[in-house]
Amino acid sequence: MTTQFGPSYVRAIAPYVAGKPISEVAREFGLDEARIVKLASNENPLGMPESAQRAIAQAASELGRYPDSNAFELKAALAARYDVPPEWITLGNGSNDILEMAAHAFVERGQSIVYSQYSFAVYALATQGLGARHLVTPAVRYGHDLDAMLAAIADDTRLIFVANPNNPTGTFIDGAALEAFIARVPRHIAVVLDEAYTEYLAADKRYDSIAWVRRYPNLLVSRTFSKAYGLAGLRIGFAIAQPELTDLLNRLRQPFNVNTLAQAAAVAALGDTAFLEKSAALNAEGYRTLTAAFERMCLEYVPSDGNFVLVRMGTDDQAGDRVNLALLKQGVIVRPVGGYGLPQWLRVTIGLPEENAAFLAALERALA
Amino acid sequence: MTTQFGPSYVRAIAPYVAGKPISEVAREFGLDEARIVKLASNENPLGMPESAQRAIAQAASELGRYPDSNAFELKAALAARYDVPPEWITLGNGSNDILEMAAHAFVERGQSIVYSQYSFAVYALATQGLGARHLVTPAVRYGHDLDAMLAAIADDTRLIFVANPNNPTGTFIDGAALEAFIARVPRHIAVVLDEAYTEYLAADKRYDSIAWVRRYPNLLVSRTFSKAYGLAGLRIGFAIAQPELTDLLNRLRQPFNVNTLAQAAAVAALGDTAFLEKSAALNAEGYRTLTAAFERMCLEYVPSDGNFVLVRMGTDDQAGDRVNLALLKQGVIVRPVGGYGLPQWLRVTIGLPEENAAFLAALERALA
Repeated sequence: MTTQFGPSYVRAIAPYVAGKPISEVAREFGLDEARIVKLASNENPLGMPESAQRAIAQAASELGRYPDSNAFELKAALAARYDVPPEWITLGNGSNDILEMAAHAFVERGQSIVYSQYSFAVYALATQGLGARHLVTPAVRYGHDLDAMLAAIADDTRLIFVANPNNPTGTFIDGAALEAFIARVPRHIAVVLDEAYTEYLAADKRYDSIAWVRRYPNLLVSRTFSKAYGLAGLRIGFAIAQPELTDLLNRLRQPFNVNTLAQAAAVAALGDTAFLEKSAALNAEGYRTLTAAFERMCLEYVPSDGNFVLVRMGTDDQAGDRVNLALLKQGVIVRPVGGYGLPQWLRVTIGLPEENAAFLAALERALA
Repeated sequence: MTTQFGPSYVRAIAPYVAGKPISEVAREFGLDEARIVKLASNENPLGMPESAQRAIAQAASELGRYPDSNAFELKAALAARYDVPPEWITLGNGSNDILEMAAHAFVERGQSIVYSQYSFAVYALATQGLGARHLVTPAVRYGHDLDAMLAAIADDTRLIFVANPNNPTGTFIDGAALEAFIARVPRHIAVVLDEAYTEYLAADKRYDSIAWVRRYPNLLVSRTFSKAYGLAGLRIGFAIAQPELTDLLNRLRQPFNVNTLAQAAAVAALGDTAFLEKSAALNAEGYRTLTAAFERMCLEYVPSDGNFVLVRMGTDDQAGDRVNLALLKQGVIVRPVGGYGLPQWLRVTIGLPEENAAFLAALERALA
């Protein structure tokens, strides 16, 4: 007899495929770890800031104790930075944790969640994990079609995910259009605005989504320390929303979901504006290098406001995997996005100048 | 208009109340942090082992990268230690994460979960978070009544939580009785055996639950590095189960749920048997000290096989809170357990000899 454990909607989930870690590629392809270039997971190529390194060293003596479940210091720092009460803040084990908590807190089985084609994989996973209904709107030029998302709202819709900039495509919605969209969403539907890449926006594209949180009690803004702040390995993200939404998240939050070192490092990184500026400048320069090379090589790419670029490897559906394998053999790890329905494309994280050069050289050989 | 977000079963959750952190008690009572004794959260009073400290320092250069989602090294170490394939192992952000994943993976809304009165709070929280039905069996002498738990199984039961030793009571079920119980559970119902405190068991009480995992495809054993291993602040636990259950957990697992430093520290701590033995010996000695004092003071306590003791402060339902407040004012943090339906009791973690002495002195003054 085959026993079937678990709800059918859980059994139907295809687990998230993470970017290959350097150690795994080294083992698989018999390569030297030190030679491998990883541009697969939209990490900050500068790594963790020194300010955070120092904070971690100081906090390392307290690790036998549970973390502060209420994250007093970090919430105080975030509250001061964003001018909101600490009670409006929820911390997550990465923003992945925030996105999952939001889905569980706002939606029950059978109700529906709206999100866009080609948006972050966790929206689909969180929806499936609940046995909720997916209302997926077709992308327009690889980005969100906000009018279509409004039109897709059903009677049982309880949550809308919007990513800005979007991952894996890098597309951007300008602030005015985004606020107009939020204003038109019925107030009983929560909007999760996922701003994992917001720190990379050019000055003229920035907008103040926290002001919108004050205005719209159904808006939750999700941020992460994994990208521009350079703390991906520590796992920490946060949400800002009015108390009604925040209170629901906290009912589901695992009480010790954010480890002690992540909290300490985030306090330091939040205050390290020099590091953020350096990261954003490096990213802008790398973006120019990569996109200039793609143009030279006649490769289509999607203009990106994140720290990555989606670039088309061919017009057949094996193109992404074929070039990916040729890159892996040369010790360059990028991200195939066939799982996103983009099998002709690869997503490349913008790295250090020498990493970008190594990737471009390997790409030329792969395509030759 | 009051908008109500979220499912009714989420709105009904009373969030977990964590042990007060030292810094919070210092702020609240105007005390010096260095003077405060915290015996509230069943942490290892020795803190993190030096072996883990060294492992963390080595891994600290990689924190800009995401953790290894598949935890290659740690799974290899656990697989070798427990003689199971790496594919039988799931890692969690603490064992809390394992318990939540198990509930979500095995149970859907409206189905039921069996657990015992006075068992770990997360079983109730995970059940509520799903909108599942609670089948709670009355405790016998503050421990699990296994016959009652079998009798409570309903047609829609999909999961049974068993803690051994149990928290917050410290009660223990011997191996033979526990295996007989597991053998009698219908095979389509998952059993989560939560062994967070197993490393503290005396040699003559130990049993091999991993051998049972090989025998029973519906058994999942949950362990943690937060207690005897001394890594509470880093957040890491793990589950061992056959592939069918493990595979379901991994469909719901957040891909980067365990941070890089926790993985590195756990590999080191797992190999540090000297630290584990020292921790268990210190605990046994502290247990004798505390229980001898309770007997001298004519205080009822529940015999414990964990690193904590449940002790009765009086026969009125304000007793626990009253004595707790008197202890807090003296800078001693223990755990009130009114939330567990035990308002006359306090749970005291076994500390270092000087911490136990400070607690006992404060207790004498509080009761005087």
